Amino acid sequence: MSSRRVASAAGSDVSHIPHLLIPGPWDDAALEPGHDASHHLTRVLRRRDGDPISYTDGRGRLGTGRLERGAVVRGNEVSIPRPAMPVLAVAPPTHKDRTRFLIEKLAELGVQELRWLRTRFGEGRVPAADKVEAWCRSAVEQSRSAWMMVVRHDLVDVGDLPEGTVFADRSGRECGALAGVPCVAVGPEGGWAVGEFPVGAHTLAFASGVLRVETAAIAAAVLANRIVG
Amino acid sequence: MSSRRVASAAGSDVSHIPHLLIPGPWDDAALEPGHDASHHLTRVLRRRDGDPISYTDGRGRLGTGRLERGAVVRGNEVSIPRPAMPVLAVAPPTHKDRTRFLIEKLAELGVQELRWLRTRFGEGRVPAADKVEAWCRSAVEQSRSAWMMVVRHDLVDVGDLPEGTVFADRSGRECGALAGVPCVAVGPEGGWAVGEFPVGAHTLAFASGVLRVETAAIAAAVLANRIVG
Repeated sequence: MSSRRVASAAGSDVSHIPHLLIPGPWDDAALEPGHDASHHLTRVLRRRDGDPISYTDGRGRLGTGRLERGAVVRGNEVSIPRPAMPVLAVAPPTHKDRTRFLIEKLAELGVQELRWLRTRFGEGRVPAADKVEAWCRSAVEQSRSAWMMVVRHDLVDVGDLPEGTVFADRSGRECGALAGVPCVAVGPEGGWAVGEFPVGAHTLAFASGVLRVETAAIAAAVLANRIVG
Repeated sequence: MSSRRVASAAGSDVSHIPHLLIPGPWDDAALEPGHDASHHLTRVLRRRDGDPISYTDGRGRLGTGRLERGAVVRGNEVSIPRPAMPVLAVAPPTHKDRTRFLIEKLAELGVQELRWLRTRFGEGRVPAADKVEAWCRSAVEQSRSAWMMVVRHDLVDVGDLPEGTVFADRSGRECGALAGVPCVAVGPEGGWAVGEFPVGAHTLAFASGVLRVETAAIAAAVLANRIVG
């Protein structure tokens, strides 16, 4: 969970409230954050009964409650609309630490769905589902968001990407508009093979140099944020 | 060094040529890439005499030569103008792997100067100069660029940042224009302290959630790229 300060525009310190992901459905008036989270709250962050806790189900519900004997007593709750972000379809990086960083950053930046892309030169492996889940949880808590990124474990083929997919490519045109783009595809370390994506597809470059897989994907997420506000 | 394929817009594979950083001055017709680089070229990448090699001094000179007995025989050389990018002034992240990732990504994205920022809540350490140098070298070779990012080892105070510095802050206005901005400042994990940056300073948010230090800095680099083209 996160207990970072959240600073206002004037630099003031408005929140030390821990933010927890507690999957739904929420049927009871008090929610169990799980043993590890309880321990972290009470022992590491030294929260006590009555202290405020922010919580989300990762599917748009966001609440502020209070700690009571290791549980979170529910308080005011609101629904946050799912952010309109393109799906990212990314060739798995070849190094695990890069994959982890990729997932963490996309989740922090509000990407809602990540798919792994099968490519001809791709040599990376799809990471284990339990690790992906843990990284996504951590990013929800860090970024204090109400939506957890969905990462599908199966690989998608380039041919099965939705119409209007934009392909990240060094020699692509700089395109400022990711508004309305359903999907951004990022190829592997080895680049795209000849003819791997359709002639006439929109391509997008993020920098003048050659970017690693995770850098290009993170750049796409940053730009997607700019458009949807 | 990098030997990634560089794909064209049509997906064709136009370059497997390794790109090397060889610091200047270049006084001779043949340049020594250093023992490790020679070994990597000949043993790992299996390059042979006569194979083309791309090389740069990291200060704007870019050439294409040929491998000859472990040395690079110089060929056509051009000068690449220094990219116009804002300086990034960043509070050092608290974890080393995040610092490494930060440096690598900023360098890949063409940032020309990174400074470490002294902040009230900052708890991270300035990384060792030799490691920073190695990460920046690696990023030059990876991104095939002609300019190596400069990272100053000393800390700068917020009060010493240039006039017109934009401060990354969650509650800042989304500002699309980084054109002409001399510096983007990114605060620490703990956020900015009250009054830490001047009243009336421009602030900039990169996403709706709370971003980690390195995520905000990378986002600034991505946006800076969009403006300077």
